[in-house]
Amino acid sequence: MPTRPIATTGPILIIGSGLLGASLGLNLRAAGVDVYLEDSSPTSLRLAQDIGAGFPFSEASDVTPALVVVATPPDVADVCVVGALQRFPSAFVTDVASVKKAVAQGVLEAGTAKGDPTLASRYVGSHPMAGRERSGAGAADADLFYGRPWVVVAHETSDPTAVLAVRTLATDVGSVPYEMDASTHDESVALVSHVPQLVSSLIAARLEEARSESMNLAGQGLRDTTRIAASDPRLWTAILAGNAGPVASILTALRCDLDDLIVHLDAANQRGPLRGGIVGAVNRVMEAGNRGVSRIPGKHGGAPSRYGELEVLIPDTPGALGRLFSELGEIDINIEDLVLEHSAGQQVGLARIMIDPARVGEAEADLERRGWRLINYSN
Amino acid sequence: MPTRPIATTGPILIIGSGLLGASLGLNLRAAGVDVYLEDSSPTSLRLAQDIGAGFPFSEASDVTPALVVVATPPDVADVCVVGALQRFPSAFVTDVASVKKAVAQGVLEAGTAKGDPTLASRYVGSHPMAGRERSGAGAADADLFYGRPWVVVAHETSDPTAVLAVRTLATDVGSVPYEMDASTHDESVALVSHVPQLVSSLIAARLEEARSESMNLAGQGLRDTTRIAASDPRLWTAILAGNAGPVASILTALRCDLDDLIVHLDAANQRGPLRGGIVGAVNRVMEAGNRGVSRIPGKHGGAPSRYGELEVLIPDTPGALGRLFSELGEIDINIEDLVLEHSAGQQVGLARIMIDPARVGEAEADLERRGWRLINYSN
Repeated sequence: MPTRPIATTGPILIIGSGLLGASLGLNLRAAGVDVYLEDSSPTSLRLAQDIGAGFPFSEASDVTPALVVVATPPDVADVCVVGALQRFPSAFVTDVASVKKAVAQGVLEAGTAKGDPTLASRYVGSHPMAGRERSGAGAADADLFYGRPWVVVAHETSDPTAVLAVRTLATDVGSVPYEMDASTHDESVALVSHVPQLVSSLIAARLEEARSESMNLAGQGLRDTTRIAASDPRLWTAILAGNAGPVASILTALRCDLDDLIVHLDAANQRGPLRGGIVGAVNRVMEAGNRGVSRIPGKHGGAPSRYGELEVLIPDTPGALGRLFSELGEIDINIEDLVLEHSAGQQVGLARIMIDPARVGEAEADLERRGWRLINYSN
Repeated sequence: MPTRPIATTGPILIIGSGLLGASLGLNLRAAGVDVYLEDSSPTSLRLAQDIGAGFPFSEASDVTPALVVVATPPDVADVCVVGALQRFPSAFVTDVASVKKAVAQGVLEAGTAKGDPTLASRYVGSHPMAGRERSGAGAADADLFYGRPWVVVAHETSDPTAVLAVRTLATDVGSVPYEMDASTHDESVALVSHVPQLVSSLIAARLEEARSESMNLAGQGLRDTTRIAASDPRLWTAILAGNAGPVASILTALRCDLDDLIVHLDAANQRGPLRGGIVGAVNRVMEAGNRGVSRIPGKHGGAPSRYGELEVLIPDTPGALGRLFSELGEIDINIEDLVLEHSAGQQVGLARIMIDPARVGEAEADLERRGWRLINYSN
């Protein structure tokens, strides 16, 4: 494979050869960078080496890493960062843990304790927002970071050259770098990732003892709200332990809204549907939800509601979706987003296809002519 | 258009010509059934007539409906059902409200109050689980019910012939009928629809005052959990008012789990990440969530985890998805489910494609050969 030109220069030492470390190694090796690996588990290290993520690092060699990337679990990241800063006095060091304040605090405190307050200046935190359900080097992929946000977290004494080196690394692997401070990062991921994860699990937990006949009525709304409830409890326990404060604070605010709902639903249940203030309570939370969801950026940074929607019935035969998308390609319609819906036991599905709103009418008419069944083709 | 053979015979009177009533009328008219419409709003009635959903009903005519379908908002459904039972002493009557116990109670009590305890025997409740974001006859579609569950809710004195007529109607419009009693229905939809709706709004409501830089980190998990938070507050207020008891009871159980999480997150925040019992608390709710989500039926009634997964990077050019699906069709791979992921501001997306697990390796190799970039192509 020809190497692609990148700005990051080696040698790079990656400490921790799991999913993130091995994926990073694979990507940088493909660009011709010298990558060395360390792992407390010889088996993990060997696996990462075998898939081509890098070479085992030897203290005895004359290799001096320019950049060290700590890709260990978050609860040992600060200790590994401090160790790397001491072992390699000329290297920049970053980590990829999904919580940032706890790691930075550990590094800064260690510098002070060791009588070297400038030690931390070569450290800059990272959080590449990439991952998958499976873990370990066996699940590694060079394209894991492609198109994902990569948060770069400098602290007060970070060397600007170190910040640049980490930004460059992010860009070189295809990520989009965003700079923010550790508190902003931790509060942001609590809001857009950690709280949705826990609340999705709370909804799904209610299904555990449901009657099976109830489950037959499950639709797309339930599938969407509970998809991430299938995530790995061990991984998430470590993440949430490192970000307990921001997560607890958002959950506490959410509980206020929930309490308000329960009070008014209980009152409506006892006094009748139009009493007890349920109308106001439900409206309050749903309108706030409407406003909140409109703030989520869409595919190209815009709000998802800016797209027009086609709803097409898809027969359950091989190639049916392919034919639909080929025909959309023929009439030069680009698909901005797509959701497939289906019911239990059914041999037919519904595709909701988001496209340029200016072209909905034309696309509907065209597809109808080609024999597709559309929902709400009202012309 | 040639009429398709169906078992339902007319004349049918539909009271309420909004989205559901007009869609039902369109469907039955296309099958050659005589459909008549009533609506308290002359404008709505005229719109439904104009799109071909049926003809205005006149008391002066000699038309006697065999079946009356009440498709009004849920808070007036029982009154309309009772009126129809009295006006048409030989007709079966059903309604399509998304709550069922409150309607049946109203009908049974009216029969007793009017000194006619057998009045209700010609009534059977319905809940076709179909809908869309927009309302009114303008959004109507003959295919709205296709492939959707249609719950048939008989009460203790329902005439078995009336139950059969409603089941037949459901099957004729392409729905899958499920029979259950009113309490089971109301508790089931509370669990699989009403609670996920409210909790999705609770998550989205927290985004209202988020910093915009936080929103840049939003990923697919947030999009999935908050998609239905964009729903119409007015519609949902009416639904939730009619099912306050079951919804409050599930939310109260959910709040117990939430309280447990908050207590242990707060403790971890104060005493350090490995204290305060956070590990146990997070594990409990996430493992319960894992078990709950595994109970949701997949496309053909099986659990979604039975599928194998392909992850393919999709360049943002017209026809790229179409080409991918055409090529999957060429190698005879059927797509069981599909999720498109993308990040803010990015020109590339990731397609997660669920297929027969026995064919994942072959499909990966084939797509790779055709030039697609796959995540975790590890052969």
